[in-house]
Amino acid sequence: MEYDYDYIRSATSREAISQSGDYTMWRYRPFLPVEQDTALPPLAVGWTPLYSVPRLGEALGLSHLWIKDDGQNPTASLKDRASALAVAKAAEAGYDTVACSSTGNAASSLAGSAAAAGLKSYIFVPERAPMGKLTQLLIFGATVISVQGNYEQTFALSRDAIEKYGWYNRNAAINPYLMEGKKTVALEIAEQLGWQAPDYVALSVGDGCTIAGVWKGFRDLYAAGFISKLPRLISVQAEKTCPINRAVETGRPWEPMEENTLADSIAVGVPRNPDKAIAAIRESDGLTVEVSDQEILDAMALVGRTCGVFAEPAGAAGTAGLIKLCKMGKIPKDAAVVSIVTGNGLKDTANGMKAAEEPIRLPPDITLLEKALP
Amino acid sequence: MEYDYDYIRSATSREAISQSGDYTMWRYRPFLPVEQDTALPPLAVGWTPLYSVPRLGEALGLSHLWIKDDGQNPTASLKDRASALAVAKAAEAGYDTVACSSTGNAASSLAGSAAAAGLKSYIFVPERAPMGKLTQLLIFGATVISVQGNYEQTFALSRDAIEKYGWYNRNAAINPYLMEGKKTVALEIAEQLGWQAPDYVALSVGDGCTIAGVWKGFRDLYAAGFISKLPRLISVQAEKTCPINRAVETGRPWEPMEENTLADSIAVGVPRNPDKAIAAIRESDGLTVEVSDQEILDAMALVGRTCGVFAEPAGAAGTAGLIKLCKMGKIPKDAAVVSIVTGNGLKDTANGMKAAEEPIRLPPDITLLEKALP
Repeated sequence: MEYDYDYIRSATSREAISQSGDYTMWRYRPFLPVEQDTALPPLAVGWTPLYSVPRLGEALGLSHLWIKDDGQNPTASLKDRASALAVAKAAEAGYDTVACSSTGNAASSLAGSAAAAGLKSYIFVPERAPMGKLTQLLIFGATVISVQGNYEQTFALSRDAIEKYGWYNRNAAINPYLMEGKKTVALEIAEQLGWQAPDYVALSVGDGCTIAGVWKGFRDLYAAGFISKLPRLISVQAEKTCPINRAVETGRPWEPMEENTLADSIAVGVPRNPDKAIAAIRESDGLTVEVSDQEILDAMALVGRTCGVFAEPAGAAGTAGLIKLCKMGKIPKDAAVVSIVTGNGLKDTANGMKAAEEPIRLPPDITLLEKALP
Repeated sequence: MEYDYDYIRSATSREAISQSGDYTMWRYRPFLPVEQDTALPPLAVGWTPLYSVPRLGEALGLSHLWIKDDGQNPTASLKDRASALAVAKAAEAGYDTVACSSTGNAASSLAGSAAAAGLKSYIFVPERAPMGKLTQLLIFGATVISVQGNYEQTFALSRDAIEKYGWYNRNAAINPYLMEGKKTVALEIAEQLGWQAPDYVALSVGDGCTIAGVWKGFRDLYAAGFISKLPRLISVQAEKTCPINRAVETGRPWEPMEENTLADSIAVGVPRNPDKAIAAIRESDGLTVEVSDQEILDAMALVGRTCGVFAEPAGAAGTAGLIKLCKMGKIPKDAAVVSIVTGNGLKDTANGMKAAEEPIRLPPDITLLEKALP
């Protein structure tokens, strides 16, 4: 989606945005494809914190490291950005019902944004969706169809049903607006760094829509003259489910892989948006890296302990990949690096427990405590 | 804690705060007991959304209803406000270790704030703490002592250990600063309403520290001349665990009760801060109301469906009480009412599932879907 960047420059400025007083993603409205009179959905999505994290940086050997905590969105994931834009566009077009299929976060964010805006929602999830995400959907009053199949089959069923019933379609790669919503995370990172891009941005990749959105955000800012350089993307996938990275690494067309990682949000063997993701990684002169489930769990624990941020597995995978690249000496020590935490660990406490140490369990007795303390 | 309100008036103003550009609770620093040079803890606590919720209002017969969603804090509860202040004070005083006992949220918030600030934490929880909260603690790298006993016994063990080991004490009712942190939710509500208090503020009550903090916040603003009236508090407790409400209702001293509600955050039979809570309710000409577990679950579902906000049981209990008072005709239809959601439902998905409908489960087949849709 190309904008008239001369128009954007005349309609707004870095100063005007910074002083807008709107502490949601809608502070970037001139960069977003909504009409002047579009009613914005109610949830306060975006403007999540960008934390300088010196202790994590020290562990990685980086002197300028930030965590962008998108788990602090209303339904606790980055996907809220896309769903907010989808709900705005659905209401603009007069729909009263929205639908999507999702590994979890797109679904719960759409259900939440729809509930807040008074729209009905139909959500298709693969049966392996973690309890936290499923509970969110049901609490938000969505009609939830739990499909006894994998993500690809879930997606196909949702596509057929949306066509049949005429619902508004929020499926990634089908709906062109989602990437525009997701790009706001890049706009925020740049603004929070004083209107400049970092040298590297690390994030996990599943369908490919988020990394394509991040790239679009930086490119939009660059085209408007709001930043003077572009970052290099670090695309992190699971080692057994990495069709996008493999395509970048081999230079050959992407091929389906099986869904094999505990990080459910990136367990995508057949990505819906591979071309834009592959193009974004290449254009940015990006890096690819694959991580094991254990490396993801280790990153969850490290990020929690050093930053006070609890990431879901896919949310920590970006940092896991960054750790691996640092160990390989691929990232300069003084580079400015942002790692995006895409979702909150409360969505998947079962895997959180795998990442964490056990508590000390004892009766209320101080002498027993004394013996038990390390 | 009394301030020099003339000094506050000379040091800041409503306009200065509103234009501060600080979108955390620290925008109210002149109202907070920290030194000029105190280093503030890193997590972005506070400035949570105040949502106008017309569909929930309609269900309750109220024309001016807001939800303050404090589940959107970094560790997903209002307790982050108290823990941020505790960590600031601990660091100010040169401690490197903090400790507390808690039914869950105070603990996870302290562990998160401490991890972000580079402090060690020792946390005492009763063994019934929900999985979400326990996982947070462990991920944040706290040393967790899971006590095989109730909250009262857990509290006693933590008190003895803190005395023995000389850790910084973040226990409610012991630490005078916690209430000062919690009061920032009231400061935000008033500012977000255009510097006025609503007619009523509803919230759930356990230890009593939060409702006392809310009252302190409004009183501070009133004393400084920033608001021109005070709200009436609505104190909501569980019907079988309501020692504070019972004392207010009977006019007699409070008496211990058993811990008997699924809302773990307010399952407090022996409150640590009853006197300040009782005084706050009385001074505000407040209302008390008790709710059943089923009423709490129903409120969780209603708030989710109409507002897109997922509250933990204690987080929805305030709204459950408000619903009950509205049904009894105790709240004028045109009153301005704020209901505080004190914590995110992702912390306790087991109870979330009890509140929600079941999903439709089926294989990926559109003809089966057609038959299954309502």
